[in-house]
Amino acid sequence: MNGSSDLGYARVDLGREARQGLPEIVYGPGKQVTEIAGIVTTLLDGNTGPVLVTRVEPGAAAAVLASVPAGRYEPAARLLVWREAPPAGHTVAVVTAGTADGPVAAEAAAVASALGLRVTVVRDVGVAGLHRVLAVAADLRAAGSVIVIAGMEGALASVVGGLVETPVIAVPTSTGYGAALEGVTALLAMLTSCAAGITVVNIDSGFGAALAAYRLTRRPR
Amino acid sequence: MNGSSDLGYARVDLGREARQGLPEIVYGPGKQVTEIAGIVTTLLDGNTGPVLVTRVEPGAAAAVLASVPAGRYEPAARLLVWREAPPAGHTVAVVTAGTADGPVAAEAAAVASALGLRVTVVRDVGVAGLHRVLAVAADLRAAGSVIVIAGMEGALASVVGGLVETPVIAVPTSTGYGAALEGVTALLAMLTSCAAGITVVNIDSGFGAALAAYRLTRRPR
Amino acid sequence: MNGSSDLGYARVDLGREARQGLPEIVYGPGKQVTEIAGIVTTLLDGNTGPVLVTRVEPGAAAAVLASVPAGRYEPAARLLVWREAPPAGHTVAVVTAGTADGPVAAEAAAVASALGLRVTVVRDVGVAGLHRVLAVAADLRAAGSVIVIAGMEGALASVVGGLVETPVIAVPTSTGYGAALEGVTALLAMLTSCAAGITVVNIDSGFGAALAAYRLTRRPR
Amino acid sequence: MNGSSDLGYARVDLGREARQGLPEIVYGPGKQVTEIAGIVTTLLDGNTGPVLVTRVEPGAAAAVLASVPAGRYEPAARLLVWREAPPAGHTVAVVTAGTADGPVAAEAAAVASALGLRVTVVRDVGVAGLHRVLAVAADLRAAGSVIVIAGMEGALASVVGGLVETPVIAVPTSTGYGAALEGVTALLAMLTSCAAGITVVNIDSGFGAALAAYRLTRRPR
Amino acid sequence: MNGSSDLGYARVDLGREARQGLPEIVYGPGKQVTEIAGIVTTLLDGNTGPVLVTRVEPGAAAAVLASVPAGRYEPAARLLVWREAPPAGHTVAVVTAGTADGPVAAEAAAVASALGLRVTVVRDVGVAGLHRVLAVAADLRAAGSVIVIAGMEGALASVVGGLVETPVIAVPTSTGYGAALEGVTALLAMLTSCAAGITVVNIDSGFGAALAAYRLTRRPR
Amino acid sequence: MNGSSDLGYARVDLGREARQGLPEIVYGPGKQVTEIAGIVTTLLDGNTGPVLVTRVEPGAAAAVLASVPAGRYEPAARLLVWREAPPAGHTVAVVTAGTADGPVAAEAAAVASALGLRVTVVRDVGVAGLHRVLAVAADLRAAGSVIVIAGMEGALASVVGGLVETPVIAVPTSTGYGAALEGVTALLAMLTSCAAGITVVNIDSGFGAALAAYRLTRRPR
Amino acid sequence: MNGSSDLGYARVDLGREARQGLPEIVYGPGKQVTEIAGIVTTLLDGNTGPVLVTRVEPGAAAAVLASVPAGRYEPAARLLVWREAPPAGHTVAVVTAGTADGPVAAEAAAVASALGLRVTVVRDVGVAGLHRVLAVAADLRAAGSVIVIAGMEGALASVVGGLVETPVIAVPTSTGYGAALEGVTALLAMLTSCAAGITVVNIDSGFGAALAAYRLTRRPR
Amino acid sequence: MNGSSDLGYARVDLGREARQGLPEIVYGPGKQVTEIAGIVTTLLDGNTGPVLVTRVEPGAAAAVLASVPAGRYEPAARLLVWREAPPAGHTVAVVTAGTADGPVAAEAAAVASALGLRVTVVRDVGVAGLHRVLAVAADLRAAGSVIVIAGMEGALASVVGGLVETPVIAVPTSTGYGAALEGVTALLAMLTSCAAGITVVNIDSGFGAALAAYRLTRRPR
Repeated sequence: MNGSSDLGYARVDLGREARQGLPEIVYGPGKQVTEIAGIVTTLLDGNTGPVLVTRVEPGAAAAVLASVPAGRYEPAARLLVWREAPPAGHTVAVVTAGTADGPVAAEAAAVASALGLRVTVVRDVGVAGLHRVLAVAADLRAAGSVIVIAGMEGALASVVGGLVETPVIAVPTSTGYGAALEGVTALLAMLTSCAAGITVVNIDSGFGAALAAYRLTRRPR
Repeated sequence: MNGSSDLGYARVDLGREARQGLPEIVYGPGKQVTEIAGIVTTLLDGNTGPVLVTRVEPGAAAAVLASVPAGRYEPAARLLVWREAPPAGHTVAVVTAGTADGPVAAEAAAVASALGLRVTVVRDVGVAGLHRVLAVAADLRAAGSVIVIAGMEGALASVVGGLVETPVIAVPTSTGYGAALEGVTALLAMLTSCAAGITVVNIDSGFGAALAAYRLTRRPR
Repeated sequence: MNGSSDLGYARVDLGREARQGLPEIVYGPGKQVTEIAGIVTTLLDGNTGPVLVTRVEPGAAAAVLASVPAGRYEPAARLLVWREAPPAGHTVAVVTAGTADGPVAAEAAAVASALGLRVTVVRDVGVAGLHRVLAVAADLRAAGSVIVIAGMEGALASVVGGLVETPVIAVPTSTGYGAALEGVTALLAMLTSCAAGITVVNIDSGFGAALAAYRLTRRPR
Repeated sequence: MNGSSDLGYARVDLGREARQGLPEIVYGPGKQVTEIAGIVTTLLDGNTGPVLVTRVEPGAAAAVLASVPAGRYEPAARLLVWREAPPAGHTVAVVTAGTADGPVAAEAAAVASALGLRVTVVRDVGVAGLHRVLAVAADLRAAGSVIVIAGMEGALASVVGGLVETPVIAVPTSTGYGAALEGVTALLAMLTSCAAGITVVNIDSGFGAALAAYRLTRRPR
Repeated sequence: MNGSSDLGYARVDLGREARQGLPEIVYGPGKQVTEIAGIVTTLLDGNTGPVLVTRVEPGAAAAVLASVPAGRYEPAARLLVWREAPPAGHTVAVVTAGTADGPVAAEAAAVASALGLRVTVVRDVGVAGLHRVLAVAADLRAAGSVIVIAGMEGALASVVGGLVETPVIAVPTSTGYGAALEGVTALLAMLTSCAAGITVVNIDSGFGAALAAYRLTRRPR
Repeated sequence: MNGSSDLGYARVDLGREARQGLPEIVYGPGKQVTEIAGIVTTLLDGNTGPVLVTRVEPGAAAAVLASVPAGRYEPAARLLVWREAPPAGHTVAVVTAGTADGPVAAEAAAVASALGLRVTVVRDVGVAGLHRVLAVAADLRAAGSVIVIAGMEGALASVVGGLVETPVIAVPTSTGYGAALEGVTALLAMLTSCAAGITVVNIDSGFGAALAAYRLTRRPR
Repeated sequence: MNGSSDLGYARVDLGREARQGLPEIVYGPGKQVTEIAGIVTTLLDGNTGPVLVTRVEPGAAAAVLASVPAGRYEPAARLLVWREAPPAGHTVAVVTAGTADGPVAAEAAAVASALGLRVTVVRDVGVAGLHRVLAVAADLRAAGSVIVIAGMEGALASVVGGLVETPVIAVPTSTGYGAALEGVTALLAMLTSCAAGITVVNIDSGFGAALAAYRLTRRPR
Repeated sequence: MNGSSDLGYARVDLGREARQGLPEIVYGPGKQVTEIAGIVTTLLDGNTGPVLVTRVEPGAAAAVLASVPAGRYEPAARLLVWREAPPAGHTVAVVTAGTADGPVAAEAAAVASALGLRVTVVRDVGVAGLHRVLAVAADLRAAGSVIVIAGMEGALASVVGGLVETPVIAVPTSTGYGAALEGVTALLAMLTSCAAGITVVNIDSGFGAALAAYRLTRRPR
């Protein structure tokens, strides 16, 4: 469970799949194309599950894919995927407050889907027009978990948290200006939600929310 | 319009009634009973409208009333009032998210009422149980303005802002703990509300909200 | 009152006009030209009132207007408008402390005007030369409401709040450097103003102030 | 699903059990003994599941129990419980970094247990002596979910997040001084954990973590 | 110029009078009565000018005076003084925005006076009633320097800074609540004042302002 | 004393020279070349003293000078000057901690000089090599006032404040990285200096410090 | 190296002495007298080196000593010690800026001494009277390491850092008010010191500084 | 020990080598190529030890080297070095949590090496895969000191602090996004580490850590 491979520029955790059911996921920013390609190759060789690289720009993605074929790039999510998992897990609903939250939702949905979760995306149901979220409440209740993505004041998390009984993972986004403080306001608001039992991940971390949803599918060993 | 009376410990603004239709309102904390009594007497003598002192504890209130009779103390609002105005203005709805927001609501309601506004109080309709605020939506729409009082993540302001078309004055409260940051989170959230045209006053300032509602009743001169 | 139209990239709130007397106003940043055009077309078709898009750069504005004619672009305000309302509301005075506050004032004035308010703009009356604001005090008192726009220490809001008795909507701006903290200082200062009953909106939100002024014109239903 | 009972001082959400499988849980601070008793009685009458009041001091707890018998008080958790649920859910491991995190762990454990979860508590396994957490790693992996409670720098959450594959709910505590900033440092650290898929609740909120664990047991409807 | 006396609990700077024309001034909090008495005695023996101890509570003050006679205590300023300087310097005007700023003004005035400055105090001329400060503008212009003391939004500093041409020393106070952030808002506002050339000292530091005024009287050597 | 000229884009304060002995000084950023030229022309026509524009980039400076001749541009200070005052005031020493503080010092020196102060500049005497500032201590003591300019931890202000007895105006700069927080750390440090009577202006405000030094030369009227 | 003893209320790390040459040091706050006594007994039994408990109030200290004799209490440091180490290490100089920093210095000195370091304490040499620190410079240079303890602006750390070449451990203290922000200003200032190679520990952590000095005495294994 | 050379644009501290065993190290940003060359030449002439310039971009580095030959540029560290010291000091282990921390590690390693320390670099052993750091624990224990470099939540510092007994110098990095707050979160976390005796330097300051390690090699004089 504890193997690792030292590539010089990175020490790849090969035991994570054994420990946590999933190979290490690569964070793209700050890595060279050759480094990404090397890490991905190492992970593909040393594991059997899906291999993902997040936050990759289109040019770098093309270069990596040229070097390590059989993968796929999702531009909206800025995600590179190899050997994605077949759909097997529960359905996670990804809900956004506004259109500006779209890229974060795309990342959450793509990562969750690549890991084998079923994903439903519900866009632009901010609470200023409350009927929009009420209209989809049944869909949200039918999901095994809900990822709520909102910037500005992040109130959608509280409203959804009061409508469903399954796990709610709230993702604050940096949408907004001024007192939105680049997502800090939404983050604080979600952490102090009056809807009990909501959990929160880092600002703009669609990736983190997807992984939290993936953990819901794991059983103790 | 610009008279003032220098009592040594205070320079009482006697022109405010002429300028703004309302005598200066006295902020109680940090003032001695004799100072409050002196200022109130000066205001009663130099003006004709209601005279108010906010945030007065019961003991001090009794002492002031003993010295300047014909006033009245509202303990829940910690407010001293003399010569309150007859009901003449529009109806302002004072809405709270939770029971802990009660004291701020009491101050808002008592000040607004003393200044001649009609007041309706709606308590404990936080968004975690959305049906509660939906159940009173018609009442809120029937008011000339709405004061929304909420702590924690302050989401009620956004929801009410989307339900009514009249002025919404949001009051963040210091209710909550940890990431609530003594009201700063609710303040920031209300300022970045996705419901357009909401305005905000200082944390726990039921007084400020009532005065903002009072300004709605004034006409240009 | 609760209709919406799902365009895929946006869920347009068609009921807002019925609920709040005004179609949804579109926030431009982060939306493609085709998305803006689609939303505007949907709003024009599904409502009867003015349709506005805020914070649109000139190039995008021209492209949208080419696609959805009969609109108009105001460059200083970065605003797109279709079917603007005839002048019917009260007069709102838009007052700035300095020339750098100009763009925010332009947005406030243009949005308010497009929604049917009468607008008077008073520029550059910062409190370091107090006679400037005193010289226009009568004009401010003659308005039905006042939008005060100031950066740096935001003191103009307190001064105006003491001069007029009608509603004052303060807009902090990101004008200034260092301890101005990109508008946070002006925001905090306006929230703690010694002039009672002032309300505040988000930093640089001329839009929010105009909507708050618009709400002043609505009657309960 | 949307019933509520207006007691004047509170609007009890009677529909929450139908909506979310659990009656509303009462937050004790700021409520009078008679108010708590009234709300509890209303909840016991209008629902069938467990009724809980959090953060109640011993004196108030005794007074409430005298008025509403058949309940139980857990002093370490400051929790009042009536009709607690039989053990039915998964096992949640509650892990703390230090002894000062004990009260938060007690609240998390007591609330989770009252809601029907099985609870294992592992105390004082901070990362400065890493062998302590490694010694209990198998126990943590055997749980259905893990609540990690830590103050100061909160590093235990990252370490546990890398050891188990099931859901991890991190609770920052206000343990520490100076740069610990009353829990804000642990909060920020947990939100930026290098261990993927960790979720976070508010500072010192053992209650919030227990409710998040409870949500893990709910199925879509 | 560089002598010092090591009392064990303090290393008294005996050279400050030679270097800066003034003996070291003692900050009272955290020092025992015997320590204060010892330091004062050392300063009286080793220097010839005024000796001051700031922020001393009445009980401690009486005990120190019993031990080191010929001094004087000013309760409003919480100041102990021995050998105060004869009036010789320029006149400093100490101006406050509200009555709650009184204690800080008392400290500023008492320290300045003990150091030989002439002091005029002008109270309670906050900008919400602008005529009050305009009424005393001539007095302010007649002073050699002005100390402006204000909490909340601190706008008085900007207004005074625009009225006088002599040095303005602004003292933010912790007056206010919520967004006043215990004086930080006034501090930031004064630092970003639109009135050019205003200088600022620490929150609630009447002492610091008085010393800054004293420096104005020193000539280069 | 209260004249102003409304140019549309600016309301020029023509009374400032009469009120404060100095025409309004123009802040360049955010103003067009034609606007700057218009304001400068108005100030030259309506006043008799020096006219300054701060923070002007070279290209804009050349364009303004082409339109309003007889002025001068100092590139290091980014300052435009017309009709500078003859040397008449006291000598102000401008002292910096490091070379990176140079541009702020250049602004302070150029503005002070243009207003008639005599200026001595002492560069790069940071406290990590204490002998450097000790070597110039006599020069600092010989000045009528000292402007101390430092970023990072700003300790030079405390050291200089203990060496001289004349007024010390501290300017925090945004020099440094990480915990320097773009000048906020130096600002806070200077405000809490253990050297009594130091005053502080805004981050990077060489202009503000020069104006504060200029105020030292004014006499009451 | 990895033993631990589970007392129920604490999991005592018995391997720390083997791993780090020193038994676990107990943090007193939040622990009962019986818990402290139990942990101390376990540490005395399972290790051979010194056993320390920090931040213990006198009453609790006496009770613990009654239960676990042969220890000693240092009231100024609030420290309990058993089996202190004989003097063997290098000499650490503990330097303070002011008398209010005394308790932190006492803790640093007492802990260091109990661990076998030689300690020299130099008090009250703040930089406002620079000759005081210069007078002791030779003493500081003669020490093997220097702990610099200062509140307010913390400038002493930079000055000492420039005078000595051995390790400097800076401890910010919560001394000061207003902009001192309870030690955060000194902390930030020390982290951005212009004196290269200074290191910093948490606010008021005399304990942390002593342990850092102790680490200087350890050799690799 | 106190010589300096005034180049106009800089006052070079020539005494630092005598005082601290090391010539002044030059901070590159904000300095012109000719200024850097001049300072370096002065340092090479007036001292005998290594001369370093940090944070130099490749183009500027080449220009400086063309002017002052016999130096060397390390691009990964952005460091210019002349006359580097022969290996003589203890071995410092430089450990990073992730690949994005590489540039800070490169600076720490290159500076330490140029000053004569022996350096071992251990990359990418973040705590999410704990076996990686455990696998190198013996290497870390074999070093004379450890520099731990980590962004995000910075937990690696606590883990390493518990594994080794020699000095630990923690460097927070700006790696991460959102709640990582550009390194502030890692900084705060390291300062509140539960591993006793860890010290911290400024965000991203590989330079500061190397200098702190260098101080470990100095003996008292």
